[in-house]
Amino acid sequence: MSSPLILLTNDDGIRAKGLRALVEIARPFGKLVLVAPEEVQSGQSHAITSHLPLRIRKIDPYDKDVEAYACTGTPVDCVKLCMSHLLHGGVPDVVLSGINHGSNSSSSILYSGTVAAAQEGALYGAQALAFSLLNLSADADFSNCIGVGQQILEKALRTPMRKDTLLTVNIPDVPGSQLKGIKVMRQAQGMWVERYDRRIDPHNNDYFWLTGDYVNKEPDATDTDEWALANNYVSITPIQADMTSYNDIPVLQQVFNSEKL
Amino acid sequence: MSSPLILLTNDDGIRAKGLRALVEIARPFGKLVLVAPEEVQSGQSHAITSHLPLRIRKIDPYDKDVEAYACTGTPVDCVKLCMSHLLHGGVPDVVLSGINHGSNSSSSILYSGTVAAAQEGALYGAQALAFSLLNLSADADFSNCIGVGQQILEKALRTPMRKDTLLTVNIPDVPGSQLKGIKVMRQAQGMWVERYDRRIDPHNNDYFWLTGDYVNKEPDATDTDEWALANNYVSITPIQADMTSYNDIPVLQQVFNSEKL
Repeated sequence: MSSPLILLTNDDGIRAKGLRALVEIARPFGKLVLVAPEEVQSGQSHAITSHLPLRIRKIDPYDKDVEAYACTGTPVDCVKLCMSHLLHGGVPDVVLSGINHGSNSSSSILYSGTVAAAQEGALYGAQALAFSLLNLSADADFSNCIGVGQQILEKALRTPMRKDTLLTVNIPDVPGSQLKGIKVMRQAQGMWVERYDRRIDPHNNDYFWLTGDYVNKEPDATDTDEWALANNYVSITPIQADMTSYNDIPVLQQVFNSEKL
Repeated sequence: MSSPLILLTNDDGIRAKGLRALVEIARPFGKLVLVAPEEVQSGQSHAITSHLPLRIRKIDPYDKDVEAYACTGTPVDCVKLCMSHLLHGGVPDVVLSGINHGSNSSSSILYSGTVAAAQEGALYGAQALAFSLLNLSADADFSNCIGVGQQILEKALRTPMRKDTLLTVNIPDVPGSQLKGIKVMRQAQGMWVERYDRRIDPHNNDYFWLTGDYVNKEPDATDTDEWALANNYVSITPIQADMTSYNDIPVLQQVFNSEKL
């Protein structure tokens, strides 16, 4: 691609600091269009809005090199509405999502709006990357991410990827001098152990806030994203859209297949 | 399990007809607790609610054999809040989700709240199945689904499944006499081609409704869920939580791995 069309989005919303950092990563590489959620959409996974209408508005000024919009929907809505409405059915060459405030590794990928937005681009044939920094603060320092992100994006643009497959890139939150390198890894098996914080409102009704801790179920494995991040490597994991558990098919066919009901 | 604890949920909401049909499938198999969304949550995928608190209320009466609740969140929120709050950190033996009004096959699985709710149960070690009928109508006739669902559930309860893996079961919307049998299949490669219906509100601002058509990208393949459904077979697909594209890792390691930045 001579000057690719690059769609930028995120799940932390149009005002997020990480989105500004994503612009800096992408700026040298092509023509930039940005469609991000009006509000925070963390944990929205691959959710789409079909029972309410969407609105989209131009943000001007946002950045001199970026045509920017905010959309009332989810991250995936942003990608779909960009392709259908702004690009008249066209597909951007590249979809970049992030930089997320917090990691998108292991089982967190299932819940991630950042990864899902990139995946939506990949489904339609765009090259797609999701970037995350391991710092949940709204005021996180993304300055290390720019050079790392550009180095990875430059290589990615030269590397043919299978359609439907995106790269999720996680960057440890340490000083640049402590970053050891880059490793392509698999997702660690892990889960979130939730505790809902139960409270009583002024009308004496209870309500619940989601809180929880991530548990790595294979802390000794050295080929996982979690291992790389714990050891100060930038982690890259290729993520596919096909969720079929192929290894289970033969035994399940023995159990369930039948030519009558 | 002598009398398993079965959690029922869906994404069409507590008032959905398909949820009543799911109760009929599950009734003979164990103790039933039901936690379903207050409102329609179609297309919510694996979304979770972390920026707003959740509420849950008991629905009494709902059904004499069922302890039933409605929750203000997504399908995955329903499963999490049930485990954390109602079961005090326990995990049900079985999570059943559905019966969805409309199919959950091919790429639709990415967007499905029905499948995600079952997957959330599977992640925590429950046996999990998602049921769907290929009829989007709120008034769809689920009577065929009861016997089919019970036949599949009875076999599933005798079949050890890998943790993290659920079964998505899709049932064609044809008279029972035309159902040919059951096939365990992989997800077809396909995608939704969207058209946003643009309208102008009374205040002269535009808004967009999501519409679209599913396109099967491999219509000639005979080992897919879409083939089974088009040929009047009930389709079962095992779905896993690990989305790592393992085949891509070696070549990407050649491109990206480095011991410096």
